[in-house]
Amino acid sequence: MSTRLAARADRERQIVAATRLLFDEQGVQEAAIDGVARAVGINKALIYRHVASKEELLVRLFEGRTEKVLAEVAAAASGAGSPRERLSAMARAYVLGVLRNLDSVHVYLREEHSLPPSALQQVHREQKAMRDHFERVIVEGTSRGDFVQGDPKLAALALLGMCTWVHRWYRPRGRLTESAVADDFAERAVRMLSP
Amino acid sequence: MSTRLAARADRERQIVAATRLLFDEQGVQEAAIDGVARAVGINKALIYRHVASKEELLVRLFEGRTEKVLAEVAAAASGAGSPRERLSAMARAYVLGVLRNLDSVHVYLREEHSLPPSALQQVHREQKAMRDHFERVIVEGTSRGDFVQGDPKLAALALLGMCTWVHRWYRPRGRLTESAVADDFAERAVRMLSP
Repeated sequence: MSTRLAARADRERQIVAATRLLFDEQGVQEAAIDGVARAVGINKALIYRHVASKEELLVRLFEGRTEKVLAEVAAAASGAGSPRERLSAMARAYVLGVLRNLDSVHVYLREEHSLPPSALQQVHREQKAMRDHFERVIVEGTSRGDFVQGDPKLAALALLGMCTWVHRWYRPRGRLTESAVADDFAERAVRMLSP
Repeated sequence: MSTRLAARADRERQIVAATRLLFDEQGVQEAAIDGVARAVGINKALIYRHVASKEELLVRLFEGRTEKVLAEVAAAASGAGSPRERLSAMARAYVLGVLRNLDSVHVYLREEHSLPPSALQQVHREQKAMRDHFERVIVEGTSRGDFVQGDPKLAALALLGMCTWVHRWYRPRGRLTESAVADDFAERAVRMLSP
């Protein structure tokens, strides 16, 4: 990468980081691009060379994050081991994904309605893909008798709800590490489905 | 109640209903008191005889709702029956509480940060009271050997997360009735804690 391209990438990382902080503190409606520019230490006109609008900033916040967690969950879903072992690994990867992106998850869940339609469609596709991974392993485990009979979609939604909700109460540097919560919830997820 | 008081109460109910719809569609930041006035069919000046600000409207939306669900959960917690039976009844009451107030739960979770500090404190007190009810029954069940050993606070948070999340995916008039979801989740809650 040329020095100039590297500098540009660096600047964009700073912009995204400042945006995340500002959106989380003030909400998207209240936050202004000026605030982002001030936080990064550049002027507003310069910011527009990097992003077209506040909505684009919002989209940038989530870019790559869900894809990464989705890839980890997909790998766990098609890995070796019994459906119970795979479901446990999937729940663990998902909880860690939420805990490692607390700020983005917070902003996203609050500001979903501010996303441009194309970005919203993308998010919905990713959410469906996530649910599908869980449903598939639940169906497989149920057909083997590892899991209780029941509505696999409802089971996936219950599990994802329990795991997503950690963003509301988890405090970094609190009494529980990310791993401790992820391990505990992975066990719970399997127990919730066990006969 | 005099006719005049009854008319006033009626008008206030209309205002709260219009607010709920508007806040849910547009978000609190975007929604204006004018919109509420238009929806109710009265002028803006008249609205201010009923409410002082948009924030007060937001507080009104939740008034009495959490208290009601909290009372139902408390009754189930201290009712007859084993800890498993009581936990099941509590989870059922809680899920029904969320499903019957979908619009308010939606607005609240998105707009919590717009609440005035005193209202926010009240909400946090109610959330803590809710968690405490669940924790108490979980501790009791664990000491009797009905539930697996584990962190009772984490167990309560997992359970409440799973149950609160229904507001994100439940579709009224969809394939599942409120009761069907509540029954299913009550079973899941108990299974999640069973050895």
